[in-house]
Amino acid sequence: MSAQEPQLISDPSGPAPGLLESKRRGGGGRPGFVWFVGAGPGDADLITLRGWRVLQKAEIVLHDSLVDPALFEDLGAECVFVGKRCGEHSMSQEQIIELLIGLALQGKRVVRLKGGDPAVLGRLGEEALSVADAGIGFEVVPGVTSSTSVPELAGIPVTHRSLADSFVVASAHRCAEGAELSIPPYLARTTLVLMMARATATEWQQQLLREGYPPELPVALISRGATEQQRVVVTSVASAATDLQAAGLETPVLAVVGRVVSLRAHLASRPIDSAEERIHCQ
Amino acid sequence: MSAQEPQLISDPSGPAPGLLESKRRGGGGRPGFVWFVGAGPGDADLITLRGWRVLQKAEIVLHDSLVDPALFEDLGAECVFVGKRCGEHSMSQEQIIELLIGLALQGKRVVRLKGGDPAVLGRLGEEALSVADAGIGFEVVPGVTSSTSVPELAGIPVTHRSLADSFVVASAHRCAEGAELSIPPYLARTTLVLMMARATATEWQQQLLREGYPPELPVALISRGATEQQRVVVTSVASAATDLQAAGLETPVLAVVGRVVSLRAHLASRPIDSAEERIHCQ
Repeated sequence: MSAQEPQLISDPSGPAPGLLESKRRGGGGRPGFVWFVGAGPGDADLITLRGWRVLQKAEIVLHDSLVDPALFEDLGAECVFVGKRCGEHSMSQEQIIELLIGLALQGKRVVRLKGGDPAVLGRLGEEALSVADAGIGFEVVPGVTSSTSVPELAGIPVTHRSLADSFVVASAHRCAEGAELSIPPYLARTTLVLMMARATATEWQQQLLREGYPPELPVALISRGATEQQRVVVTSVASAATDLQAAGLETPVLAVVGRVVSLRAHLASRPIDSAEERIHCQ
Repeated sequence: MSAQEPQLISDPSGPAPGLLESKRRGGGGRPGFVWFVGAGPGDADLITLRGWRVLQKAEIVLHDSLVDPALFEDLGAECVFVGKRCGEHSMSQEQIIELLIGLALQGKRVVRLKGGDPAVLGRLGEEALSVADAGIGFEVVPGVTSSTSVPELAGIPVTHRSLADSFVVASAHRCAEGAELSIPPYLARTTLVLMMARATATEWQQQLLREGYPPELPVALISRGATEQQRVVVTSVASAATDLQAAGLETPVLAVVGRVVSLRAHLASRPIDSAEERIHCQ
């Protein structure tokens, strides 16, 4: 409610623009502005009111691949896909940052729309630091993070009394060939959420075992969570990689590791559960 | 978009009601329904579109203390405060569950509105299990969790390349007198977020040191995040408890522990930052 609006910066009654201000204004017109907006976990209805209002005011939207296209229906803004998915045409991180800054310096109202929440494994920091360094005003509009909401919509709260009083979120994406994944050691009352878990399943499974996770500990593999295409496979640490492959789960896959997975049998309430499959550990 | 609507259950063309259906319908009228809705971290604008629409359809809303009152303006529903805060009149967890079920069995459309996300230390599991056991239909509408968005709005992304590739969320609330807090051991590239961190500051600080957190590691203490009353104190593990007390921070306080805290100097972009204070580790 108190968030900075672009018109506050271009207010003619404000202080005379200094060096920073003229840099912001590009060729001398009104200043550009960047909103980093979290789109939520897949269902367009899960964007925030603030995020949705910002989208309506945008002139240009740079969006990732995991954003619901329904968000762009009837939008006045130009929408540019800058996602990075294997095998698809995409932009490098440097090119995205360059485009973002270039558009803002032209005086555009730019929305950088990211799936889930921009601060959760979403490179918000890198992009916002570059925008700030270029003297461009920006605002961050948080989103519903997939890390907690995708399990939740599949009937698995990441915390639950007596089962888990904390949770940890890590990426199963390998930054470089041969790089070690960042899997935290096993803690009995902690739920582990692994994002982007499809490509490296064999690797993270082995690393879980090395880090002390019990082989029989339940694992839920959630493919395309929070969409009509959601599929859920309930398995165990010992069988996770095999079952993921056998089920042919599509990307993105999120893995929930811990005792809270057992709650799904009681809490899966949504109609999209008709597509569910359960293999082990029910 | 695919979420279950109450009219789907009361559809007269559907299958004849069995035992479960008649239990749901209470005295034989239309069935009640419960939505568990996340209100987001404080700013009413950060509820989801879905959550907001569900609120407009509600007949009765049971809400916690950390929910922005602006959400209730012009709402047709009856709003009942069932929050649990020290020193305030409140209901027990058992009473809340009893009320929730009683209202739904009377055929009411009930919204259980929780601050942040209901699955993140929000007792969603307990309440939803009881509602499900009573044969009442329910839907979960995730919210923006305070655990990641409160740091984010204070200029601290919980993950950031080269600083943190994972994060852990734990409660600093002590369930019972003398009970140990659940503080995970130190991991170099992991951000720790401690929720409800005000009352037990001395205790969690000592436990951080015992668990291997370096004394000089930065800590941000965020009081009343995502509201106009936000105050931020940047300190270190060694000084956290003293600085929290010296600053007289009001509840709720969230503590962010890790190297990502250093980004705040560059990324704090919102006008509410005028109320900020920085003590150490800038």
